[in-house]
Amino acid sequence: MNIVVLGAGAIGGFYGAVLTRQGENVTFIARGKNLEHLQKHDLHIESIWGDFSVPVKAVPADDIPSLDPCDVVILAVKSTALMNVMPQLKELLAENTKILCLLNGIGNEEVLAEEFGAERVIGGSAFVSTIFEKPGLIQHVAEGKIVMGDWTKERSKLVDQLAEVLTKAGVEIEVSDNIRQAKWEKLLWNICFNPITALTQTKVGVALKNQDIYPIMKRIQSEYLAVAKAYNIHFDPEKADWIFEENEDAGNHKTSMLQDFESGKKMELDAIMGYVIKLAHEKDIPVATIETIYHLLRFAENEANKN
Amino acid sequence: MNIVVLGAGAIGGFYGAVLTRQGENVTFIARGKNLEHLQKHDLHIESIWGDFSVPVKAVPADDIPSLDPCDVVILAVKSTALMNVMPQLKELLAENTKILCLLNGIGNEEVLAEEFGAERVIGGSAFVSTIFEKPGLIQHVAEGKIVMGDWTKERSKLVDQLAEVLTKAGVEIEVSDNIRQAKWEKLLWNICFNPITALTQTKVGVALKNQDIYPIMKRIQSEYLAVAKAYNIHFDPEKADWIFEENEDAGNHKTSMLQDFESGKKMELDAIMGYVIKLAHEKDIPVATIETIYHLLRFAENEANKN
Repeated sequence: MNIVVLGAGAIGGFYGAVLTRQGENVTFIARGKNLEHLQKHDLHIESIWGDFSVPVKAVPADDIPSLDPCDVVILAVKSTALMNVMPQLKELLAENTKILCLLNGIGNEEVLAEEFGAERVIGGSAFVSTIFEKPGLIQHVAEGKIVMGDWTKERSKLVDQLAEVLTKAGVEIEVSDNIRQAKWEKLLWNICFNPITALTQTKVGVALKNQDIYPIMKRIQSEYLAVAKAYNIHFDPEKADWIFEENEDAGNHKTSMLQDFESGKKMELDAIMGYVIKLAHEKDIPVATIETIYHLLRFAENEANKN
Repeated sequence: MNIVVLGAGAIGGFYGAVLTRQGENVTFIARGKNLEHLQKHDLHIESIWGDFSVPVKAVPADDIPSLDPCDVVILAVKSTALMNVMPQLKELLAENTKILCLLNGIGNEEVLAEEFGAERVIGGSAFVSTIFEKPGLIQHVAEGKIVMGDWTKERSKLVDQLAEVLTKAGVEIEVSDNIRQAKWEKLLWNICFNPITALTQTKVGVALKNQDIYPIMKRIQSEYLAVAKAYNIHFDPEKADWIFEENEDAGNHKTSMLQDFESGKKMELDAIMGYVIKLAHEKDIPVATIETIYHLLRFAENEANKN
């Protein structure tokens, strides 16, 4: 299969490496020091599935016109960078190329479908914890499963082929006939935990036990469920409450948004909250808690960038 | 007039000094270094109305039983200390003693009325900016007016007498026949500006111009007005919006809550927000923005106290 990975970071680098090892024809679009390194050295993965190194094919975005047509683009940039890579994405699309969208949050597949047609888009959720340690070194510390499905709801041959190569490469795959619902379900955890832990700089376990943070998360949950319902996304009660169940893993967990905030990176505010707020406004659903946290975080991010 | 000032801080100290200078019989209940200083030295006021010094009578709470019966107790502790001084207050009340409550926020007169009877209570709002610089030195930097009125709505002779002595002492006084409404009106500014500026550590002028803080304040305003309405407190639209009008004074203004937070003092979270939240819950009015800010501040206060 001809695969291009756009966004050779922690997630794109990991899945691209796994597919390369499996013998698929993978090309990474990379830049800067990461590109330089990958052109000269192997990509090394320290993984809970077993460490390995593979030589990879990495090219700069300028070389896109010279590439062979590809079957699928694995889009794995940060949600905050989606608009920036739209021109590259456009250049990558041959007649039958599809895009597997592994971006966090909701609203991204909608943008891609609007721009390139829904039949191009495969929605995806990567349940994986990987860390981009430095150019050429990615750590894979937990999970790995991908849930994906055609955005049109008509299952394409390509999705099954892609599922097959990923499965062969060792990745657990679930092909969903309702990927939109699956993405909303994944976002439930993210919207309840990511923003508030970033804002208060707490770990998940602390947030779960705190008498002030807990009621805020409960209200975020109920606002989010109300928006979901208005868009015909229904949660069964167990699926809505599992996020608050205490578990040992969560205790020490630092959310990705807190990590981004601490390291001065742009947080995925719009993919995790902004799009939900936009949808809520369109149907007049009150989301005051989500909006308050969103604005406080955007304020904090802007203040931090002043320094 | 026999007057006791309970809470010889920035506000109680200021009005007590002004009344002492006027020749009223004022006793301060004080403690610690402040008590020691006032027993040996004059109380000095650096005031926009003109600086002055007066010898004052200051005693510890233990001496309350030996005091002559007083006509009025000017209660000027922080809202956060109200419950702590209830026993002293009880000891101070002779047959006809009334309490002028100068505490910030709403809900305090209700507590006093419940405990001592509404006919004992004079509600009050001090529109004044004073700073407790150190024992024996208070700065009076802006305004000075007091709005007050009987909590029972039946105007008492004592309120008029008190208004007279305060007016003679140079204080602008407005006797309100609806002091409850007046306190709600004063709280509008406080609830919109105090909590959010403390949380984000911004000055009022910055908050007014910020694209993220401004919408939060607008939502606090509308939630607060909805609660007020449910309790038959009606704001005319101009009175509700004046707080957002830009003015030069506001630009550099640091709210009292931000000052308290910065200096590690307990913030008046319950008098400014907690009581409003309680009232809102009783009538099922949504106040998610106010609640979110309240919990974030309480979290921040608790975290700060850990250090």
